[in-house]
Amino acid sequence: MGEQVAVLGAAGYAGAVAGALLHRHPHFELAYVTARSDAGVRLDEVHPRTRVPLVLEEYDRDRHSQVDAAVVAYPHGAAAPVVAELRERGVRVVDLSADFRLHSRAVYEDWYGAHPAPALVGEAVYGLPELHRSEIAGAGLVANPGCYPTAAILALAPLARAGLLGDVVIDAKSGVSGAGREPTHDKHFVSVDETVKPYKVGRHRHTPEIEQELGNGVRVTFTPHLVPVAHGELVSCYVTPAGEADVGALYEMYDGEPWVEVVEGPPGMQEVRETNFCRISVHSDERTGRIIVFATIDNLWKGTSSQAVQNLNLMFGRDESEGL
Amino acid sequence: MGEQVAVLGAAGYAGAVAGALLHRHPHFELAYVTARSDAGVRLDEVHPRTRVPLVLEEYDRDRHSQVDAAVVAYPHGAAAPVVAELRERGVRVVDLSADFRLHSRAVYEDWYGAHPAPALVGEAVYGLPELHRSEIAGAGLVANPGCYPTAAILALAPLARAGLLGDVVIDAKSGVSGAGREPTHDKHFVSVDETVKPYKVGRHRHTPEIEQELGNGVRVTFTPHLVPVAHGELVSCYVTPAGEADVGALYEMYDGEPWVEVVEGPPGMQEVRETNFCRISVHSDERTGRIIVFATIDNLWKGTSSQAVQNLNLMFGRDESEGL
Amino acid sequence: MGEQVAVLGAAGYAGAVAGALLHRHPHFELAYVTARSDAGVRLDEVHPRTRVPLVLEEYDRDRHSQVDAAVVAYPHGAAAPVVAELRERGVRVVDLSADFRLHSRAVYEDWYGAHPAPALVGEAVYGLPELHRSEIAGAGLVANPGCYPTAAILALAPLARAGLLGDVVIDAKSGVSGAGREPTHDKHFVSVDETVKPYKVGRHRHTPEIEQELGNGVRVTFTPHLVPVAHGELVSCYVTPAGEADVGALYEMYDGEPWVEVVEGPPGMQEVRETNFCRISVHSDERTGRIIVFATIDNLWKGTSSQAVQNLNLMFGRDESEGL
Amino acid sequence: MGEQVAVLGAAGYAGAVAGALLHRHPHFELAYVTARSDAGVRLDEVHPRTRVPLVLEEYDRDRHSQVDAAVVAYPHGAAAPVVAELRERGVRVVDLSADFRLHSRAVYEDWYGAHPAPALVGEAVYGLPELHRSEIAGAGLVANPGCYPTAAILALAPLARAGLLGDVVIDAKSGVSGAGREPTHDKHFVSVDETVKPYKVGRHRHTPEIEQELGNGVRVTFTPHLVPVAHGELVSCYVTPAGEADVGALYEMYDGEPWVEVVEGPPGMQEVRETNFCRISVHSDERTGRIIVFATIDNLWKGTSSQAVQNLNLMFGRDESEGL
Repeated sequence: MGEQVAVLGAAGYAGAVAGALLHRHPHFELAYVTARSDAGVRLDEVHPRTRVPLVLEEYDRDRHSQVDAAVVAYPHGAAAPVVAELRERGVRVVDLSADFRLHSRAVYEDWYGAHPAPALVGEAVYGLPELHRSEIAGAGLVANPGCYPTAAILALAPLARAGLLGDVVIDAKSGVSGAGREPTHDKHFVSVDETVKPYKVGRHRHTPEIEQELGNGVRVTFTPHLVPVAHGELVSCYVTPAGEADVGALYEMYDGEPWVEVVEGPPGMQEVRETNFCRISVHSDERTGRIIVFATIDNLWKGTSSQAVQNLNLMFGRDESEGL
Repeated sequence: MGEQVAVLGAAGYAGAVAGALLHRHPHFELAYVTARSDAGVRLDEVHPRTRVPLVLEEYDRDRHSQVDAAVVAYPHGAAAPVVAELRERGVRVVDLSADFRLHSRAVYEDWYGAHPAPALVGEAVYGLPELHRSEIAGAGLVANPGCYPTAAILALAPLARAGLLGDVVIDAKSGVSGAGREPTHDKHFVSVDETVKPYKVGRHRHTPEIEQELGNGVRVTFTPHLVPVAHGELVSCYVTPAGEADVGALYEMYDGEPWVEVVEGPPGMQEVRETNFCRISVHSDERTGRIIVFATIDNLWKGTSSQAVQNLNLMFGRDESEGL
Repeated sequence: MGEQVAVLGAAGYAGAVAGALLHRHPHFELAYVTARSDAGVRLDEVHPRTRVPLVLEEYDRDRHSQVDAAVVAYPHGAAAPVVAELRERGVRVVDLSADFRLHSRAVYEDWYGAHPAPALVGEAVYGLPELHRSEIAGAGLVANPGCYPTAAILALAPLARAGLLGDVVIDAKSGVSGAGREPTHDKHFVSVDETVKPYKVGRHRHTPEIEQELGNGVRVTFTPHLVPVAHGELVSCYVTPAGEADVGALYEMYDGEPWVEVVEGPPGMQEVRETNFCRISVHSDERTGRIIVFATIDNLWKGTSSQAVQNLNLMFGRDESEGL
Repeated sequence: MGEQVAVLGAAGYAGAVAGALLHRHPHFELAYVTARSDAGVRLDEVHPRTRVPLVLEEYDRDRHSQVDAAVVAYPHGAAAPVVAELRERGVRVVDLSADFRLHSRAVYEDWYGAHPAPALVGEAVYGLPELHRSEIAGAGLVANPGCYPTAAILALAPLARAGLLGDVVIDAKSGVSGAGREPTHDKHFVSVDETVKPYKVGRHRHTPEIEQELGNGVRVTFTPHLVPVAHGELVSCYVTPAGEADVGALYEMYDGEPWVEVVEGPPGMQEVRETNFCRISVHSDERTGRIIVFATIDNLWKGTSSQAVQNLNLMFGRDESEGL
């Protein structure tokens, strides 16, 4: 029998997908699911597509001893104390929040304010399997990447490694589920339908995470846009190269990767919907010398919850693709 | 009684909007409408929303003498010979195609192939009223701008005039009507729904038009994306400035413009849907020093057909906003 | 100068459309607009498409004396006391709520509970111009019909008048704006996108209003469905006829009606989007003997706010279509 | 190793889903896929989401001997000759077309014209597992139901068996993929977006199939509507009961069915998207005495291709749910 895994915060979109994937996982057992406002209701009533017949429970730290691992699907700031309680009891954690993604506490505090659990920052591994596979395997705490960083870092990592990132603009488009399940005017169907709108221009909190993983002090201009799509994400990356290179060859670094598809492209969001795939295409703009890279993922899958399962598989020595 | 105006090619999306606007225009008279495959059918049967009860006719050059002006809504290449026939008969023309937008025949032929009517190139005025109002007033042939150029040029003209366009990336998003009415796999509902997809990367033919109007030898990286919206367009422009300036003050050039709204933004497509407005917001990305400018229009209105009516108003000495 | 008109509750979808139509109306003057939670903000900031630069004010009964008429866009129950205050000061009112639509207080109380202002019930006229034009002209209080009743009654009135309504099923489909602007889980983009879902099966409060206007004790089965459309409404009516008749001839009752279009059809919602038109088609199902009638409107226009302006035009002796 | 299965006509939507399901099926082997206009291209290039790397081949009857079974995804009329060739070689067939669904050749010819292979009509079994499980198990030729009939028959079968179907109206809503992949004006994104439109009023060819399976000479009024959804289908069934019954108890006939979910409802299309589930809810309209039944499926899955796999599983003695 497989390890017992809990999903904390399973009434949100990300937690629900994590719950569904773990419930039907051939190895792991979904031990329990929690929620705040929806406690007492079955997960498949809140999210019928999960078909998980478990009742959402109140958070209860005494249950931590019953599980081997947990996926924490809380907002940033709220996640850290829960992660700390889980780690104290030896539970291995994949945290979907931003609380442990940034290695530098100073950078974290620039973007988010005081850190809620600084003692754990050093322990956390950035959970992008394609870049940190071996560290993830041994980790007690995996900080699951943000959705935009997942796409942007996979798109640009081959150029970053070759030292080619002279100048970077990332224009990102995201489906509405990326903004969460809480009802607001901005997410009302009538507000989103038949429009595209930029948001958080110059100040989206995924920016430092992208820069950390690209390294070398790169500064990116990152601009997200909301599009009338339920889930899906596309990043369009415009790079002025810092030197010359056989760009196509650089992307061979993904040969053999089970969940990265380098295609002639350009790719569309539909092609990866409800999968763990990241689809990438690389183009040269010969008139300007720029390199253009597109990457698309499902923000709730590779951008969040199926990547969390990919990480759990690695943490427990399973085939990385099991149950995906 | 007002001038008589024909719309040639009124069964397409752009021609239909032009027909509808002219039909209800307080001054102009919509004399007749033509179409190829839909000839014999009433325009309001092909496009009920126009509520234009005129029967679409076959193209007939002998009818040109009955009109004072014509809007030509033909594909590029096909438009030029028709425009020539109209001009021979003294009819003033707003041409919606790309045939007469580029002043340089060499540039035209780089992007489109042999020019179909080179003798008329010198006569044409680029029909963006905010930049060329007085030339339009006296013109016999107005080359109506492309939809992407309308938004991109209005977004960047203040920076171009100030010599600030050091480096420019334009990431554009367009609704599906911009791709025309002809049914193709790419425009099938199932292909477009729930996805965003780049197209014509590095080779969209609106590029030279944008560069011509921005001037100073600027080279732009221009990348269009198809979004699941019927009509609407947003350009996100990323500029590395060539110098310092009070950027906000530059956009005061639009004070008093009836159809340009400079807002704090960022703007969304919905805000200009089915209007002649272009909505612009300007932002500084302090971390990277970049200037980010967004502009949104309705691709079938300010991006095509209401702008054609704005041009007609100017050509015939009417209030620029009449009937809009 | 025209009559002064206020819109109370202009931050909602219906109130905003009413405000926009009155602001650009050639005769009426939009005197002021009110809102509760958005007071102090300009209407064109909350709803940019209105382009009404008036600041939303708090409700203030002392301002009633400054206007000749008011459109009240409040929820049912909340509208009645405000309507009463307006009527006391002699202001003529178009009430968009359900408070005064039902002539029978008993029926009202069956569906809504205690009536908030029973003394005014007798004064109210049901504001469907095609059926009650002359009464509306003299009315002090017009109860603007619900969106579903507008479509359903116009679809079925010719059959009702002929005594043919033996048995009626109305299957209705509505865009999301019909459910109002308040953010809820049910109206979140992700909940509505890519789905169709029935709601309030057998108990939607528009049912008694439809039955009242069809008369003769007809009982209808009315089932609304939410569809992924911002605004638009279609009713599909299935009638087992109580006798024989030349059905097509019955619909000639709409000949000359400016805002009813009887077409061969079937019609789609797009055809009437953002217009005051109701488009109807009538079909015979020869295999079963049923009559099938479709009617489509824009739920925010003919279904609510443009119909309110049509009513105002009638009340003040203007051309019914002015400003529409 | 499992049986070899071919999918003929795999470039269409239905064939592609069948191909994808069989390619990842734990037992069956997807032997080859064919297409007409897309022959020579890989299936995952035409339909990336399938992730089936097989090249689409021209139809070749000599390959039939290599397979144990075939899914035929051809238009009606075109399917029958291919089915005949497969059956001659002993290949077991699930035919997705309408060619063999109707037991009565006369009824077929009323709706479709001359039958293309009348000799095979008697051999075919109607492939709705919930009603014909045992016949399917032994069948050489299974006529896979139409999408609307799947939902409508499952919705109404319990009432039909109890003899309660006095009078039936079926108002159906379907996503656009149900109309096939061929590009047409009607399926252009701009035609479908933001609208709902009825079609084939009183003459949709799924009508006789529904009546055949409900039996007892029932005549239904069936009206399909196109909705702006890629895939998904909802039928709203209005029944005037022919007698009295404990309606809830009748639906216990689905207890234990793996792919029918009877819920309190009402259900929405999203809840079954990309699954083999049919979700049903039953309601009483107490005011009129009517029974209202909703059923929702994914038209490409339970409505076509996953149901085809469910049938294949039964035909070859596998667990009915394998690979679904």
